[in-house]
Amino acid sequence: MARSLGRIVSGFRCFGSLPFGNPPLKTQCSGVLFRTTSERTLVHVLPKIFPRKPRDFSLPNSSWGKEMMELYNHYNRLSKEATEGQEDHGEEWTRLPSYNRTLKYATGGAYLSKIIQSKARLFTRNIRDPGAAFEYVLFFRQDKLKCVCIFQAGHLLEGPPGHVHGGAIATMIDTVTGTHASLLSAPVMTANLNVNYRSPIPLGSTVLIESILDKEDGRKMYISCRVTSTDGSKLHTEATALFLSISVSNLLRR
Amino acid sequence: MARSLGRIVSGFRCFGSLPFGNPPLKTQCSGVLFRTTSERTLVHVLPKIFPRKPRDFSLPNSSWGKEMMELYNHYNRLSKEATEGQEDHGEEWTRLPSYNRTLKYATGGAYLSKIIQSKARLFTRNIRDPGAAFEYVLFFRQDKLKCVCIFQAGHLLEGPPGHVHGGAIATMIDTVTGTHASLLSAPVMTANLNVNYRSPIPLGSTVLIESILDKEDGRKMYISCRVTSTDGSKLHTEATALFLSISVSNLLRR
Repeated sequence: MARSLGRIVSGFRCFGSLPFGNPPLKTQCSGVLFRTTSERTLVHVLPKIFPRKPRDFSLPNSSWGKEMMELYNHYNRLSKEATEGQEDHGEEWTRLPSYNRTLKYATGGAYLSKIIQSKARLFTRNIRDPGAAFEYVLFFRQDKLKCVCIFQAGHLLEGPPGHVHGGAIATMIDTVTGTHASLLSAPVMTANLNVNYRSPIPLGSTVLIESILDKEDGRKMYISCRVTSTDGSKLHTEATALFLSISVSNLLRR
Repeated sequence: MARSLGRIVSGFRCFGSLPFGNPPLKTQCSGVLFRTTSERTLVHVLPKIFPRKPRDFSLPNSSWGKEMMELYNHYNRLSKEATEGQEDHGEEWTRLPSYNRTLKYATGGAYLSKIIQSKARLFTRNIRDPGAAFEYVLFFRQDKLKCVCIFQAGHLLEGPPGHVHGGAIATMIDTVTGTHASLLSAPVMTANLNVNYRSPIPLGSTVLIESILDKEDGRKMYISCRVTSTDGSKLHTEATALFLSISVSNLLRR
């Protein structure tokens, strides 16, 4: 249910409230456009309240191990090369920033106080201690047919002794496939997540999560996902996910 | 992958290291029996290192809302009545304690230092702040055909704005069904988790998670699960899970 409100609240990315969204544009926003069905309100006050440069959790920190850094550098290099137009490897990747706040009600200025007061934090970014829980970074291909996530599992994700909890793995799969679906057709909602666990993941290890678009059928998007060792030789988990495009107003009105 | 080592390390429950296990016995243990394939080592030192009464996260705290408390009191009353033999409602429930540590390597005294030094914490109990994340308590029927979990979703579990992350819901489903399977035939490992999301769960709300044994077939256990509003009128999520009995030595040797 990594439902993304990406496109609806895409203007918010400047102050870092968006868990899943489109990649950052190279523009500065001094105000925020709230979009509702009936009104559009330009709010100039928010950038003063929220820091202009919130913490991007997808950037390297001291807890990242060698495998995590090597893979990050690999995809980041491809991403930069694509951006700078120096080379074309046929795989143009873009890093997705990741923040720990989402706007609770993106329906108008009247909800500003709720937004500011909200203690809500994105589940996968709710622990700030580097390396303790979910350390991950997502890259997506420009043609949007594929997403890849490098995930290092911290000691607070334990399920069976010394290994990652199945729920934490499902959480990462939902996050990666949900982000992927939101890039194709935001907003979306997870309708089904079918996870097959093949081999447990030791705590502290780094794995690769790859997401591929299988099929689009009207409002439905079928995405498959594999969790493997970083060299791809060991399959840990495989999954399929079904996402539905939704009317965001239904969710916000609840 | 809420694989439980319940029966294998059942002796450990006295110092609270077991995330999923059999219900507590009314006995005191002054030592711990480490079981391996080749040796049994009685260790008397552990109770001095680990507190005899670690925090049981399944007991009420100040964050529990009215719905959570009412349901807890309901099942707790049935549980106590069954224990005291005063009444028989035909439904004899037992509350399951819940701790935030698991023994990383339960294979012998040589691993004591690793156990003590381990920073690993059970994923669903890794935040101590009451009410911030997963608040839940499990009860199971004495005939083990049914488990029920009362779950209050904290503000750190956010996915879509104002609602619980699909991964957090999957985590609770894995936890409840995995605990259920471990009561039937520990140790087990989740092989499949198939989750259908029907209606999002607002942050802060309390829901009921019910787990039912569908079928046993050799090493396989098929369990189904429903997440509903506390009065059962609204279906939020439904899921099926497949668990396999495993040889615990395979996991511990990894």
